Amino acid sequence: MAQRRIDLVLDSVKRLLRIGATANLLNLLQKQHPADLAQLFSELSDRDREAAFSILADRNGRLAMEAVSELGPEAGASLLGTRSAEDIARLAQEVPSDDAAALIDYLPEDLSTAVLDLMRPKESGVVENLLEYDEQTAGRIMNPNVFALSEDITVGEAISELQGSRDVEMVFYLYVVDERRHLVGVVSLRRLLLVSPETPLKRIMTSELISARVDTDQEEVARQVASYNLLAIPVVDPENKLVGIITVDDVIDVIKDEATEDILRLAGVSGDERVFSTPLDSLRLRFPWLAINLGTAFLAASVVALFERTISQLTILAVFMPIVAGMGGNAATQTLTVIVRGIALGELTWSNARKALFKEVIVGVGNGLATGIIAALVVWLFRGEPIIGALLGVAMVFNLFVAATAGTLIPLGLQAIKIDPALASTVFITTFTDVAGFASFLGLASLYLRLSGKVV
Amino acid sequence: MAQRRIDLVLDSVKRLLRIGATANLLNLLQKQHPADLAQLFSELSDRDREAAFSILADRNGRLAMEAVSELGPEAGASLLGTRSAEDIARLAQEVPSDDAAALIDYLPEDLSTAVLDLMRPKESGVVENLLEYDEQTAGRIMNPNVFALSEDITVGEAISELQGSRDVEMVFYLYVVDERRHLVGVVSLRRLLLVSPETPLKRIMTSELISARVDTDQEEVARQVASYNLLAIPVVDPENKLVGIITVDDVIDVIKDEATEDILRLAGVSGDERVFSTPLDSLRLRFPWLAINLGTAFLAASVVALFERTISQLTILAVFMPIVAGMGGNAATQTLTVIVRGIALGELTWSNARKALFKEVIVGVGNGLATGIIAALVVWLFRGEPIIGALLGVAMVFNLFVAATAGTLIPLGLQAIKIDPALASTVFITTFTDVAGFASFLGLASLYLRLSGKVV
Repeated sequence: MAQRRIDLVLDSVKRLLRIGATANLLNLLQKQHPADLAQLFSELSDRDREAAFSILADRNGRLAMEAVSELGPEAGASLLGTRSAEDIARLAQEVPSDDAAALIDYLPEDLSTAVLDLMRPKESGVVENLLEYDEQTAGRIMNPNVFALSEDITVGEAISELQGSRDVEMVFYLYVVDERRHLVGVVSLRRLLLVSPETPLKRIMTSELISARVDTDQEEVARQVASYNLLAIPVVDPENKLVGIITVDDVIDVIKDEATEDILRLAGVSGDERVFSTPLDSLRLRFPWLAINLGTAFLAASVVALFERTISQLTILAVFMPIVAGMGGNAATQTLTVIVRGIALGELTWSNARKALFKEVIVGVGNGLATGIIAALVVWLFRGEPIIGALLGVAMVFNLFVAATAGTLIPLGLQAIKIDPALASTVFITTFTDVAGFASFLGLASLYLRLSGKVV
Repeated sequence: MAQRRIDLVLDSVKRLLRIGATANLLNLLQKQHPADLAQLFSELSDRDREAAFSILADRNGRLAMEAVSELGPEAGASLLGTRSAEDIARLAQEVPSDDAAALIDYLPEDLSTAVLDLMRPKESGVVENLLEYDEQTAGRIMNPNVFALSEDITVGEAISELQGSRDVEMVFYLYVVDERRHLVGVVSLRRLLLVSPETPLKRIMTSELISARVDTDQEEVARQVASYNLLAIPVVDPENKLVGIITVDDVIDVIKDEATEDILRLAGVSGDERVFSTPLDSLRLRFPWLAINLGTAFLAASVVALFERTISQLTILAVFMPIVAGMGGNAATQTLTVIVRGIALGELTWSNARKALFKEVIVGVGNGLATGIIAALVVWLFRGEPIIGALLGVAMVFNLFVAATAGTLIPLGLQAIKIDPALASTVFITTFTDVAGFASFLGLASLYLRLSGKVV
């Protein structure tokens, strides 16, 4: 729905809440798509959101819960947590078990235990099983309610089974299992329509199929679904028994989450933070990065301290030294980001790393020369200091070379030792360029002072 | 396919190329999935890639072209461009018109004109039509080869039509059109199986359906498909006539591309750059950002220059001034990134902007106090300079407040005037924190020198 329509509905919801027109409000909310409701909820104030959710949850639990699922587990659980355990247990049974598990996982521990105790034994068992898989694995995000056909039936029998099934997710691929539920093949719904009803399913199924194991990392699942253009991927246990299905809409969520994590980490923000995390959470999540940065900043400052005498003789150095460091920092951020994204998209691997390094060094030195010459000219023309300008230019070329090398090798090195290369964030990489920038510029200047006989 | 298997195949391909075992190589290549071939191609050297592609293209044009499409339009076109126009025209007809259009668009202009002239008139007409839509719109990325049913037929007739169709993309949703091809409804393949063959299609179709117009921005299309969990979205012209379909696999590509663009832009890199853009392209794409940064760095330097006399009296200021600027820059990058990603994910809008600003200011001032106190203590304890430490701490609190405010308001302001907020990259935002950091720290220091009577 376009933002304009959302805004109109939002205004009506606020107005109806204010005048207490519950019946009209319920009517309006019930006409919305769950995704639009989620958008509405996220734009309401805390009080209005809880009031609107409460009205909807009492009368149309399924729609309310679909909207909560669309909000994402963290925001969804925080909205759901405003209700009693009894209510939550009832509502949780309105959505597929994977969505319920994701929400319950984010509730405060007391509440989630109470909810699981109150749910119907079968339902809570399924949810508890899902919660036993590690976070960010296929097992955690799969829907265990998967439709499967026996390999020994005919196409006609398969169609009748399909007609009798309800509430199963995504029946576009039909998975085929043997008598012990081992995954043995797949057949598309369309293919069923193209052959006569007597054909044995075995004859038309494809037995080469791509599946994920319960412990496969969700990022790897997303990569497979995306690169093979799948609509869903079956999930099997270590014995190859079919235990669930992951559909492409879940994969889209994973792709978005992983991109968000990369973007945030590169900037020195925890991948868990969101724009409306509480101030206290954000403060706590960002402080360690800033503390590390403070440490590296003192490291860079101690390099400057080595040259305090040089600066006291030539104060103009203090004016231009931030330029060398800043340009290096920006160039390093450029290189780092291109490299980290290349790794994430699978375009950059060890086998072509040398090519990438070679390219980055050319780009770094090239841009170092271009900006260094401009900087030197500016200092010469506007400050009348040709020598200082030349020192600045040379230091910039050197520092952009360091930026290119560090920006390429550090994330590749982290990847090699299986640490997320996005953690080589700006915070760490700029340590190198700060130190190299200050050391080269001030070092060259003190060498110049010494050689020109201005200091002994 | 796991990276390990790719590596094994890669080694075999290299070996077979070296010994010239063309038949074996062809055999090996033909066993791979197009996505895996694309991965292989991207990891081979330029010469090996062209040789392998040439062998495959001569014998299995379709598979070769599917792999080229998977490489993405830029890399794909550069590989395809190594062939003659005749070859390209023949090969382009092996893939859907949207993929062909994307590739031909990236060929050098002479070559793309020659190719379009050489293609069969009907095919090249379809491709040329697609190329007339603006880049990044639904029209550009849709597949015009969409399967549609007339609203006046029965379910049984629909199934026969489906059985007779071939090579149409994604027949999980069946779109229903009136006699002038206006889009009037949709029915799922599964629903066809659940009713008797005599049922009129009109009776079971859903007429409330979500569609995109040819000029809808591809990001909006992706947002709709993702939030409504669709597998495909129909594309209509301004008169609501059905002209194409966009499937979820294309949407995944859009989501990845948009995330890449945001990540790169935040770091001051053009969204068009990739890890293996040529060094010259990268140099040219990054230079403007570095040049702008050089300008802002000189601006910050001119602030320092205002305090040259203060620095010459108290050189220790030069040692600590990069700390104030650097901490502000990092805090601003944190805020900026959280805000930009919140906007991109649709979580942050104008209606909740005040809440976000309030939060960021609390977090900024909070972390400013925490890191400022640490910094002050370090300067006091290790350099024995309590006053300088206190000045540093106060300047840091002020600068982290500026960082939070600028990091929130600048991207929101850009969004309001319809400029991509990710363009408020680190380069621009750190100008504020550099200037505010130098001005506050050096300003406080010169005030102190004056008040304490050390200068007149």
